[in-house]
Amino acid sequence: MNSAVIVSAGKGTRMGANTAKLFLEIARRPVIAHTWQQFERAACIGEIILVVRAGLQSTFAELAAKYGFKKPFRIVAGGAERQDSVWNGLRALSPQSELVAIHDGARPLVTVEVIQDTLEGAWETGAAVAAQRVTDTIKESEDGQSISRHLDRQRLWAVQTPQAFQVEIIRRAIAAARAKGLSLTDDTAACELIGQPVRLVNCPTPNPKVTVPADLPYVEKLLQAGKAPLKVAR
Amino acid sequence: MNSAVIVSAGKGTRMGANTAKLFLEIARRPVIAHTWQQFERAACIGEIILVVRAGLQSTFAELAAKYGFKKPFRIVAGGAERQDSVWNGLRALSPQSELVAIHDGARPLVTVEVIQDTLEGAWETGAAVAAQRVTDTIKESEDGQSISRHLDRQRLWAVQTPQAFQVEIIRRAIAAARAKGLSLTDDTAACELIGQPVRLVNCPTPNPKVTVPADLPYVEKLLQAGKAPLKVAR
Repeated sequence: MNSAVIVSAGKGTRMGANTAKLFLEIARRPVIAHTWQQFERAACIGEIILVVRAGLQSTFAELAAKYGFKKPFRIVAGGAERQDSVWNGLRALSPQSELVAIHDGARPLVTVEVIQDTLEGAWETGAAVAAQRVTDTIKESEDGQSISRHLDRQRLWAVQTPQAFQVEIIRRAIAAARAKGLSLTDDTAACELIGQPVRLVNCPTPNPKVTVPADLPYVEKLLQAGKAPLKVAR
Repeated sequence: MNSAVIVSAGKGTRMGANTAKLFLEIARRPVIAHTWQQFERAACIGEIILVVRAGLQSTFAELAAKYGFKKPFRIVAGGAERQDSVWNGLRALSPQSELVAIHDGARPLVTVEVIQDTLEGAWETGAAVAAQRVTDTIKESEDGQSISRHLDRQRLWAVQTPQAFQVEIIRRAIAAARAKGLSLTDDTAACELIGQPVRLVNCPTPNPKVTVPADLPYVEKLLQAGKAPLKVAR
């Protein structure tokens, strides 16, 4: 079976409380309901684990009733840092789970296709991540004052989520990070610690993270352009 | 004297003809009129060189009449590649020009402050570029298939325009690129060829390039939020 871990417990300091951000409405539904809906629609996903701030479990559970989500889900409490939340999500997987797609709750534009593609990449390679070629010109700076290195844009990819893994691999990778006292904000970076290659999966449609309030109109426009509206269960 | 070179001759293949893109209206004015207005407003700029597609000089000149731009300007024809257009712009500078700010015509949200700041950086260091810290997680890939290197986001900056230079330095840098047969899309990269350091100037406000039609509503919203409307000359 394949599982999804939707990380919805971040601190979200750039936009006030992360939870508030996830409950902001775009296209008349909370951001997190759009995200959840995509994993609900993805036939390749058998169960959904939502990792939320401790104490908010029932708030999230109410969404399933309101929007009629039927797929098995569990809601677990997150930890202090993103990596702790992912770890808690991995601990809540069903024993028969073989592949897991880890996704940011604040990326509501994820498509069923990219969920499938990252899972397929993980099946073949062990680890795979949704990514887009970088269009900005990026420079490296040692001191934040002047350019140290001009990077070749042709080689640069911005990685997003979903990040998909064979369950055993991501457990081992994050255990390695924890053992070293590292707290990583990116699950593929943990793979480097155990020498696990990571496949890049091109994400052909915009997949932004809702980070600041100014993102909302843009995300709403994309949602309305590309997707069927969510239905509220009666 | 300080000059501005506004590059408005690109091929713009992602959004049809670049010229069409520059004449799309946001907040009821063409993109390029917003950009020009900012350099018109900047007291530190003494003359403006617009580099445009050959044959379109009069189309651009009409903007000055329509929007009442009074600052001395010249309109020159661009070349085959961006670097050729910049080169043509530099050739059109007044002999007394000491510093030059090179700017993308498709970045209408440039502020007077960041124009000043990049010129000051160029005065002190020789070369300076408007830049913002990268918020995406960026990976390097040799083959476009899998991650080769995890980059440290703390060290990464996305560079934009204006890019400002002492005139003698940027002429020498681009001459070096031309001598090597290189065609660079980024003027600071030419500085590397002559060992010229480049200062990063933090741009505190959004400064996107209008690249695809989906960018327009976002840019329009920012324009309306932050700026006085352009006035049409009577």
